Amino acid sequence: MPHLTRFAFAGLIVLLTAGLVPGADAPTSLATQECIECHAIYHPGIVADWRRSRHAVITPREAMAVTGTALKVSSRQVPEALLNTSVGCAECHMVRGDAHADTFEHNGYDIHVVVSPDDCATCHAQEREQYADNIMARAYTNLAENAVYNDLERTILGRSTRKEGRIHFDTPDPQTKAEGCYYCHGTQLKLTGTEWRDTDAGEMEFPVIEGWPNQGVGRVNLDGSYGSCTSCHTRHQFSIEMARKPYTCMECHAGPDVPAYKIYAASKHGNLFSAKAGQWRFDTVPWTVGRDFTAPTCAACHISLLVDEEGAVINQRTHQMSDRLGWRLFGLIYAHPQPRSPDTTIIRNAAGLPLPTDLDGTPAKAFLIDPDEVASRRQTMQQTCLACHSTGWVTQHFERLDNTIAETNHQVRTATDLMGAIWEKGHARGLAHGGSLFDEYIERRWMDTWLFYANSTRFASAMAGGGDYGVFEIGRYQLTRSILEMQDWLDTREMIAAPRKP
Amino acid sequence: MPHLTRFAFAGLIVLLTAGLVPGADAPTSLATQECIECHAIYHPGIVADWRRSRHAVITPREAMAVTGTALKVSSRQVPEALLNTSVGCAECHMVRGDAHADTFEHNGYDIHVVVSPDDCATCHAQEREQYADNIMARAYTNLAENAVYNDLERTILGRSTRKEGRIHFDTPDPQTKAEGCYYCHGTQLKLTGTEWRDTDAGEMEFPVIEGWPNQGVGRVNLDGSYGSCTSCHTRHQFSIEMARKPYTCMECHAGPDVPAYKIYAASKHGNLFSAKAGQWRFDTVPWTVGRDFTAPTCAACHISLLVDEEGAVINQRTHQMSDRLGWRLFGLIYAHPQPRSPDTTIIRNAAGLPLPTDLDGTPAKAFLIDPDEVASRRQTMQQTCLACHSTGWVTQHFERLDNTIAETNHQVRTATDLMGAIWEKGHARGLAHGGSLFDEYIERRWMDTWLFYANSTRFASAMAGGGDYGVFEIGRYQLTRSILEMQDWLDTREMIAAPRKP
Amino acid sequence: MPHLTRFAFAGLIVLLTAGLVPGADAPTSLATQECIECHAIYHPGIVADWRRSRHAVITPREAMAVTGTALKVSSRQVPEALLNTSVGCAECHMVRGDAHADTFEHNGYDIHVVVSPDDCATCHAQEREQYADNIMARAYTNLAENAVYNDLERTILGRSTRKEGRIHFDTPDPQTKAEGCYYCHGTQLKLTGTEWRDTDAGEMEFPVIEGWPNQGVGRVNLDGSYGSCTSCHTRHQFSIEMARKPYTCMECHAGPDVPAYKIYAASKHGNLFSAKAGQWRFDTVPWTVGRDFTAPTCAACHISLLVDEEGAVINQRTHQMSDRLGWRLFGLIYAHPQPRSPDTTIIRNAAGLPLPTDLDGTPAKAFLIDPDEVASRRQTMQQTCLACHSTGWVTQHFERLDNTIAETNHQVRTATDLMGAIWEKGHARGLAHGGSLFDEYIERRWMDTWLFYANSTRFASAMAGGGDYGVFEIGRYQLTRSILEMQDWLDTREMIAAPRKP
Repeated sequence: MPHLTRFAFAGLIVLLTAGLVPGADAPTSLATQECIECHAIYHPGIVADWRRSRHAVITPREAMAVTGTALKVSSRQVPEALLNTSVGCAECHMVRGDAHADTFEHNGYDIHVVVSPDDCATCHAQEREQYADNIMARAYTNLAENAVYNDLERTILGRSTRKEGRIHFDTPDPQTKAEGCYYCHGTQLKLTGTEWRDTDAGEMEFPVIEGWPNQGVGRVNLDGSYGSCTSCHTRHQFSIEMARKPYTCMECHAGPDVPAYKIYAASKHGNLFSAKAGQWRFDTVPWTVGRDFTAPTCAACHISLLVDEEGAVINQRTHQMSDRLGWRLFGLIYAHPQPRSPDTTIIRNAAGLPLPTDLDGTPAKAFLIDPDEVASRRQTMQQTCLACHSTGWVTQHFERLDNTIAETNHQVRTATDLMGAIWEKGHARGLAHGGSLFDEYIERRWMDTWLFYANSTRFASAMAGGGDYGVFEIGRYQLTRSILEMQDWLDTREMIAAPRKP
Repeated sequence: MPHLTRFAFAGLIVLLTAGLVPGADAPTSLATQECIECHAIYHPGIVADWRRSRHAVITPREAMAVTGTALKVSSRQVPEALLNTSVGCAECHMVRGDAHADTFEHNGYDIHVVVSPDDCATCHAQEREQYADNIMARAYTNLAENAVYNDLERTILGRSTRKEGRIHFDTPDPQTKAEGCYYCHGTQLKLTGTEWRDTDAGEMEFPVIEGWPNQGVGRVNLDGSYGSCTSCHTRHQFSIEMARKPYTCMECHAGPDVPAYKIYAASKHGNLFSAKAGQWRFDTVPWTVGRDFTAPTCAACHISLLVDEEGAVINQRTHQMSDRLGWRLFGLIYAHPQPRSPDTTIIRNAAGLPLPTDLDGTPAKAFLIDPDEVASRRQTMQQTCLACHSTGWVTQHFERLDNTIAETNHQVRTATDLMGAIWEKGHARGLAHGGSLFDEYIERRWMDTWLFYANSTRFASAMAGGGDYGVFEIGRYQLTRSILEMQDWLDTREMIAAPRKP
Repeated sequence: MPHLTRFAFAGLIVLLTAGLVPGADAPTSLATQECIECHAIYHPGIVADWRRSRHAVITPREAMAVTGTALKVSSRQVPEALLNTSVGCAECHMVRGDAHADTFEHNGYDIHVVVSPDDCATCHAQEREQYADNIMARAYTNLAENAVYNDLERTILGRSTRKEGRIHFDTPDPQTKAEGCYYCHGTQLKLTGTEWRDTDAGEMEFPVIEGWPNQGVGRVNLDGSYGSCTSCHTRHQFSIEMARKPYTCMECHAGPDVPAYKIYAASKHGNLFSAKAGQWRFDTVPWTVGRDFTAPTCAACHISLLVDEEGAVINQRTHQMSDRLGWRLFGLIYAHPQPRSPDTTIIRNAAGLPLPTDLDGTPAKAFLIDPDEVASRRQTMQQTCLACHSTGWVTQHFERLDNTIAETNHQVRTATDLMGAIWEKGHARGLAHGGSLFDEYIERRWMDTWLFYANSTRFASAMAGGGDYGVFEIGRYQLTRSILEMQDWLDTREMIAAPRKP
C-alpha cells in the first residue's frame, strides 16, 4: 500500500542517519551506572526496559530545550544536578529522599523503593498538577473514606459466614483489599519495618512496605502523595506508545462496572485501531490526526495533545481526564454530572448519604458541576470528534447520549422503586431497618441494574459502540431482565406471604 | 524468519520502483480539489484517510482495465465524467444527486451527505447486486416490519413502568432504537428539514437527517436503497484490509446472540490469525491461500475471492453471504435452513406467526431453502475448507455440526415445552392469554436458552471453536442450567399454589 | 524509536546475507517431494504453511549439531534415514508406521493420518518425555474415567428430557462429547473402518477415524500414545512464535472455568504484550529476557527456556507445566496442592470419591504434593519473576496469592455448607439420596461458586491481573452473589414448607 511504502522509506532514512548506538548520546550518572552494574545481572528485564526508554537517551536539559507542542518536560526548574545526565535509576529512586518513608541505605546510597508523582513532578510538573485534580488521584480515599462504599466493599470482599439463616460478611482483610478494589484504586502504602535478606551480593537490609506491590491510580505513597504515574506510564520503559494504546486503560476498564475497553474494541473506532494500528505512529509528540493515526484511542479522546497536519492544536493535553467529560456515566446509583471536586467524600445527597444522587435520582447539585460546565466540557471533547466528523454527525451523536442517560436513569428508577417496595414490605432489610443496601440476593439484582447494565448501556452510547454492548452483551436486555426478575421475586414472596386455602 | 525476509525484500523492491509520491498518479477533479481545500482544515482526519485509500490513487478507467481475478471494479459502464479522475469527495457525494432527498447546495455544488449502495454501484455494480440478495440488506425492514420481533424490541428497548404489580414497556423512542437494535440493523433515514449553522466559513444551511449517524447493514437510505457499504468498507479509506480482518465483523457479531468473533478468536483459525497476521497480506486481489494468508478470517470463508498460488480459483467472491450457508444457526427459536428470500417478513409458520419455525421446532418449509440447496451451499463453503484440510476432516467436521444443530434444537424443545407448561398452568401470560412472549422474567430465561446458549453452542460447532465457547463460556453448561432454572421456577410456583397444612 | 531502528538494521543485514531462497538449503526427501507434487494442488494451504516452517529448512543432522541452550532437537539418536533431509510430509506421516492403526497404503506409501507425540519424539525425545508427566497428557482419561466428572459431563452434554416434573439427562452422544469437553481434553481416536472416495486423482481408499478431527491435549492416539503436540505447535508451520504467544493457550483457557487468557490480557504483563509484541522476537532459542521480550507470556512463565543477555539460564524449558506450580487453582471443589501423579483417576478423598478434596475442603493428602514440593515449585516459578522484580515485590505477591487461596476456599466452604443444608433438608437430592451432585438448578448455582468464581478470583490473583477479573468481571462480586442466592433460595423453600395461617 502506498502509505506503507512511504513509511518504510522514512524508516530507511532514520536507519541511515541515526547511528547504530541509540542511548549513547545521553551520559549516565555515576550513581546510575553503579545501580546498573548489579541490577543488569539481578533484574535484567527492567534494565533492558529502561535502556529502551526515552529516559535513557536524552537529558532533561536537552528535553527542556524542545520548543512548541513537542515539549514533554513541562517543569521550568529542574535541579542543576539532574540536568545533564539521562534519567536513570538514581535520578528517580534517589530524588527527594527525605520525603519518602521508605528511604534506606543501599550500597552507600539513599534509595526509596516507591517512586511517586511528586518525584516525577521534578520534570513533569504540569502533568502532575493536572493529575492532582483528576478524580483518579483520589481513587483510594474516595473509596476508603466513604461509608456507603465501604459497606459495598465489605459485602463483596469480606469473608462470608452463615449465622441463623443469614449470610454475614466480615471486614475484609488487607491482602484481599489490595488485590480486590484497591488493585485499581490504589493501596495505602505503609512502612511496617525492615528486614534482612540473603542476597547474591550478601546480607542486606530492606524496607518492608504494606500494600506493596501496587500501581493503582490513587495509591497513597510513602511521601503522602496520591497516585501512581506507572499505572499508565508502565515502568521502566515509560512508553508513550503504551499509554496511548487502549490496553493500558483496559487494565482497569474492562469489567461490567466499566467495560470501556470492550465497548471500544467493538466500535468502529476500535475496529480501525485493531486493523490499522500497525501502520500508525504512537510515539510522536504532538500527535497528528490523520498522519500519525486515523481513529482515536482512549488517550486521543481523553488525554493527548492533538494537532492537525499543519501543527494547529485540536485539543490540549490534559491529565485531569474529567476536563472533557460532562457526565459521570457509571451508576452511583444514577448517571450524574461530574463532581466539582476530585474529593468525592465530601458529597452528601438529600438523605445525608455520601452519594451523588438520591435513591430517586435527584442529583446532589451543590457538589456537581452545573449545566454550563457540562456543556463546556462536552464542547472540549467535541473538538476532537470534529477532526473527522461533521457538526451534524457530532451533535446528533451527543443528543443520543443525552437520551440514553435519561432513559437508563428512568429504568434504574423503576428498579429502585421496586427495591424500595421490597424493603418497605419487609422482604429485605434496607437502611431504614438497620440493614445494609448490599447484603441480600435481591439487593444484588438491584445493584446489577445500575452497577453493570445501565452503566454499560451508557458507555456503549458514549463511545458509539452501540449494537451488542448496548443491547444483548451487557445492556438493555440484561437491564430489563433484571427488573423483571425483581418483580418476579417480589411476586413470589407476596404469594408465599398471602393467606391460602388449606 | 525466512519468509519474513522474503517479505522484507519484496517491500524493498516496491520501495525503489514505486516512486515516493503515491497518489500523484491519479488526477483529482476540480470539484474534489475544492472540497479538500476546506475540509483538510476542518476535518483533517477524513481527508488524510481518503488520501491513503485506493480511491485516491487510481482512476476508474485504470481500474477497469485490470484483467482476470484482480479486477475490482465490476461495472462495465462507468459514466465518462468519472473515468479519468480519482474517486474523491465529489465523485461519491455528488453522484446521482437527484435520487437523494438530502441533496443540498453547498458552495455552488449539489452535495448529499449519505452515500448509498446505489452510489457505490456506479463502479461496483456486481457487489451491490449481490448484496441486495443478502439478508443483511433487509436487516432494517426484517426487524421493523415483523410483529413478533417488534414486541421483543419493545420489551428490551422500551421504557419500563410498574403498574399493578406488573412491568409494562412503552414503545421505544427513536433515539434508543437507533442506538439499540438498529445500530447494527441500520436505521431508516429521513430528511426532517434543514438548519443554518455558524461555521468557520460563515453561515451555511445543512440538511437535518433523522436516524443519522448510522452505518448499519440494512440502513434505509435517502435514495430508498437498502444497506450501507461503509458498515464493512469503513470510510474514508475503504480499506480491503479492514474488511478482511475479523474486527469489522466483530462490530456486530460479538454479543451472546451471535458471538462469532469471540468464538473465532478462541479457535485454531483465530489463534493463527492473532499470532501471524502481521506477516500476512490483506490487500491483494485475488487473495492467495498459503501465500497471502495461512488461516481464514471471517471474510475468507464467507465473502472473498480465493485463489491458490497458481491463480486457480478456490472460491468466487460473493456479497450475498448466505451463498455458502445452508443453515441459519441463531435461534428463531430453532436453527433452520436459510430463508429463500432476503425479505423474511413474508415468512409464516403453521401458527401464522412471522417466524421460520413453530414453537415445536417444525420449520416453515415453504419459506426456507430445501435440502438440496442446503447441501449445495455447504459444498461451496467446503471448497475453502479443502484448501487446507482433507476430505475426511471436513466431512466429519460438518457431521458434528449437523449433530449439534439437532441436539441444541432438542434442548430448546425441552425448554419450550417447559415454557408451554408454564403458560398453560397460568403461571405466566403467553400469546394464548393475550400476553407477550417476552415480558416476564421466566420468559426471559426461556429466551436465553435459544437466543444465547443454543445459538452460541452452534456457532462454536460451526467454527470449530468448540471448547469453552461450546461448554462453559456461553454454551451447553448455561443451556442446561437455564432449563433447570425453568423447572425449578415452575416447581416453586406449583408448591406455592398447592394446598398445604395450616 | 531507537530500538526499532536497531531491529530494522538487523533485519537489513539478514536480508543481504541470507539469500533469497530460504528453504533451498535442506534437501527434501523423494517421498516428501512426491507428496507435495499432488498436495500443493489439493491442499495448497498446508503445503505453503510447511514451507514456512523450520522443519522445511533444516535437517535433523544440522539441528542436532547446534550446541548449548540453542539446541532444539533433544534426541541423541535420530534414525540415519531421517538425518539428511528436511522434516517433510513423509518424515512425520510415515515414521513408525507399524505402530499406527490408521496406517494405509496411499500411492505406494504407508501413510498414517494422525501424527502422535511418539512420532515427534523421534527428534524431540525430552519434550515428549516431560509432556508424558504433564497432567494435560492425561486430560482424556482423567475426565473419561472419573465417575464424578462423568456425571458432571452427562448433566451438561446430555440430551435433556422432562419426566414427572424433573429434568433427566441422557448419556451424551460421541459427537457432542468430541465437540464439548473433549475438544480441549482430547478425544479417544478409533479406527472404525475404511472408505473409498472419488478424488481428483481417482478412486482411493482412506481410513475412517472416530473422534477425528481433534487436537486436544490429552488425545488418545491410534498408536496408544496420549497427547497431541499440535495443540500448541500448530501444524504445519509448527511455529514457536505461535506457541509462545498467549493466543495458543487461549484456545482452551478463556472460559469462566479457567479464564487465564482474559485475565492475562487485562494484567500489566498482558498490556505490555499487547502494546509491544510487535517489537519483540518470538522465534529465538533460547529466549532472552529484556532483549527478545520485556514481559512474560504464558509460555515464558510456564514452559520456555529463559536466559539473560549474557546467556545465563534463568529458567529451564519444561513440557511438564506443573513443574513450576505448587497449587492447582481451579476448583475441584477447592483449590489444592498439585496432584502427585498426572493420572488423577487414582485419587480418592476421605469419602471415597475421586476428588482431590472432601466436600469440607480437606485435601486428599496422600495423592497431592507435600508442602516442601509446593515451596520448591514456587521457587522455580519465582526465578522468572525475579528477572524483573525485587524479592520484596515477588514475596508479597505470592503472600497475597496464598491469602486468596485461603479466602476463596473459605467462601466455597460457606457455599458448600449451604448446599449441604439444602440436601439435608430434602430441598434437593444429593449423593446421600441417590441423586446427582449436578442436575438441579440450585446445585448449578453451588457449582458456579467453585467452578467459575472462586476459580477466576484465584487466577486473577496468581497472574496479578486483579482488578476487574477478581472483583466485578467474574470474581468476588459474583462469588458472594451466588452465596446470597443460595441462601435466598433456601429461605424461599423453607417459607413455602412452613405451616401458615389459612
